[in-house]
Amino acid sequence: MPRLGDVGEHAWIAALLRRLPRRERRRGILLGAGDDAAVVRPGGRPLLLTTDCLIEGVHFRRSWLAPAALGGRAFGASVSDVASMGGEARFALLALEAPSDLPRAYLDALVRGYRRAAVRAGARLVGGNVAAGKRLALTSMVVGTAPGRVIMRAGARRGDGLYVTGVLGASGVAVGRLRDGRRADWPPPPLRLRTGVALARVARAMIDVSDGLAQDLGHLCRASRVGAEVRLDRVPVALTCRRALGPRAAGFAATAGEDYELLVAMPPAARARLGRLGCRLTRIGDIVGGPHVARFVDGEGHAVALGAGGFDHFR
Amino acid sequence: MPRLGDVGEHAWIAALLRRLPRRERRRGILLGAGDDAAVVRPGGRPLLLTTDCLIEGVHFRRSWLAPAALGGRAFGASVSDVASMGGEARFALLALEAPSDLPRAYLDALVRGYRRAAVRAGARLVGGNVAAGKRLALTSMVVGTAPGRVIMRAGARRGDGLYVTGVLGASGVAVGRLRDGRRADWPPPPLRLRTGVALARVARAMIDVSDGLAQDLGHLCRASRVGAEVRLDRVPVALTCRRALGPRAAGFAATAGEDYELLVAMPPAARARLGRLGCRLTRIGDIVGGPHVARFVDGEGHAVALGAGGFDHFR
Repeated sequence: MPRLGDVGEHAWIAALLRRLPRRERRRGILLGAGDDAAVVRPGGRPLLLTTDCLIEGVHFRRSWLAPAALGGRAFGASVSDVASMGGEARFALLALEAPSDLPRAYLDALVRGYRRAAVRAGARLVGGNVAAGKRLALTSMVVGTAPGRVIMRAGARRGDGLYVTGVLGASGVAVGRLRDGRRADWPPPPLRLRTGVALARVARAMIDVSDGLAQDLGHLCRASRVGAEVRLDRVPVALTCRRALGPRAAGFAATAGEDYELLVAMPPAARARLGRLGCRLTRIGDIVGGPHVARFVDGEGHAVALGAGGFDHFR
Repeated sequence: MPRLGDVGEHAWIAALLRRLPRRERRRGILLGAGDDAAVVRPGGRPLLLTTDCLIEGVHFRRSWLAPAALGGRAFGASVSDVASMGGEARFALLALEAPSDLPRAYLDALVRGYRRAAVRAGARLVGGNVAAGKRLALTSMVVGTAPGRVIMRAGARRGDGLYVTGVLGASGVAVGRLRDGRRADWPPPPLRLRTGVALARVARAMIDVSDGLAQDLGHLCRASRVGAEVRLDRVPVALTCRRALGPRAAGFAATAGEDYELLVAMPPAARARLGRLGCRLTRIGDIVGGPHVARFVDGEGHAVALGAGGFDHFR
C-alpha cells in the first residue's frame, strides 16, 4: 500500500484534485483547490481563501526565531497566496497547537507578532483556536478580496516575459545555517500585497515562490500549459546568499524555498504600464512553447542542471 | 513565569480578547474573536469565519474511528460554530498535518469523509494544505453566510427559556470507552445547520455544546450578563449514556463534551412560531437574574453539584 512518503505532497494533491467533481465549480465557487488560494463568491465580490501551516521540528525550531517573528512568519506564509492572486488581505484566523508547558508570555508574543504582520498587510485577526499538542504548530487562514482581476497560475502565454519580485535565497541560507546550529537572521516574508495588486493589472499568470523558484515555476508552466526558459544569471540573488555561496548562489536561490516573492508572467510591453511596486522586479526569462516545464540556461543559452531542490513535504 | 497549563485555554483566550484594540470593530468586522465564529462583511453580506482542530493523541486516536469518520468529524466540529450563529455553511478549507508513513488510502478516505460531511451541510471543500508532521492533525476552517439574523452568545434576557437540540452524552460515553481500549460507536457531529437557521429567527442567544453543556452555558451567561437555572432531570440524555451510567447519566451528559448540539435562549412564547427543526428541542431551564453563572437544580429546585466536567485544553 503506497504511503504518503512514497507519493509525495504535490503528487497526492494533484491526484486528489483530478478526482474532484466538476460540480464543485457551481454554487459560488469560481476557483477551487489547486491554485494558490480558492476564489469564492458567496454574495457580491469574489473572496480569496487560503491556509498554510508552520510545524515545530518541520518548518522551524523554537530556538531559530523570537515568538513574535514566528507569529509574523505564520501570517506572512499564508497571506502570500492572497498576494500572488492580486488580492487584498482582509481577515485572518490563527489555529494554534501548543504544548501546555509553553510560557504564556511566549504565546502572547506569538499572537502579537501575528497580529502586527496582519495589520501591516491590511488584514485583521478575527478569530482562531488553541488546542493542547505535543509540539507547537500554527495554522493560519486568510480571507482576501480582489480589488481587480484575480490572477491564477494558468494564463501565461508564449512570448510573455517572466519576472520575479525582490531577491531570492536569503531564507534558504538562513535556514541552512540555523539547521547547522549556527546563528542567522531569518528574514520575514515580504508581504507583497500591494505589489500583487499592482502586478495583477497586467499579469497573465502569477504564483508565490514558496517551494523554490524552479518548483513553483513548474506549477505555473503545467497550469498554463506552456514552457519557461530562465536565465540563471538573471535570477536576483540575496546578498547574504551570494556572500555565503559565491558562484553556487544563483543555483541555490533558484531552488531554495520560503522567500515568498512573486513570480509573474506578463507581456513585456506591459511593464511600462506598471505603477510603483514598492520593490524590485527582475525579468529572469520568457514563457516559451514546448514541454510544460521550466528550463534554466546560462548566459550563452546552455542548459544548466539545478540540484534536486524545491520543497516537497514527505520526500 | 506562568505556563499555558497553569493559565488554561479559556482564561488565556479571555485575557487575549480583553487586550484586542477596539478599532478591530472597524473595516468590515462586525464581530471579532470571542464568540463562536467571527462575523465580517467584506462586501455585501456578512460572512461567518471559524476554525477548529483535531489532533491525534489529544482529540482522537487513529484506532477509534475510520478515516472517513475522522474527516467528517473535523468538518462537523468546525461547522458547529457556524450553525450556532444561525449561519449557512458555504466553503471549507482543510489543513492537514500527516506523518509521512501514513497510507495514502487513509488520507484519501479522510478527505472523502470531510468532503461528504461538507456537502451534507451545504458547503464545499475549496482548498487546504498538507504538511509533514509527527502526528496526524486536522485544522478545518469554515466560511458561512447568514441568511437572516446572526445570533451571538450575548443577548439572552431574564425570562427567556433555555433549550437544547438533540440529546447529550453519547459522544462522551463513546470517548470514555475508547480511551479504556473498549469498542464504541462514536457518533458523528449532528450538523445542525438548518436547525440553527430556524432557531435564529427567534433566538436571543445561541452557542454550540462542544465543551459540555455546563461550561458552554457558562460562556453564554457571561457574554449575556445573565444567570441560568437548569433542571438536570430535563436534560435530554442519549440512550447509550443512560444505559451506561444509569442514575449518573444526566450529570455526565451535562458536562460531557463534543456533542455539537445547539443551546439556545429564546422567549418561551416564540417556540410556537418555530417551523420544522429536524430534531428534538428540549426546554431544560430558564434564564434568570443574579450572578452570571449556570446553576443546576433537581426536580425539587435543590442545587446539584456537577463533577468538574467541561473540556479545557491544558488543564
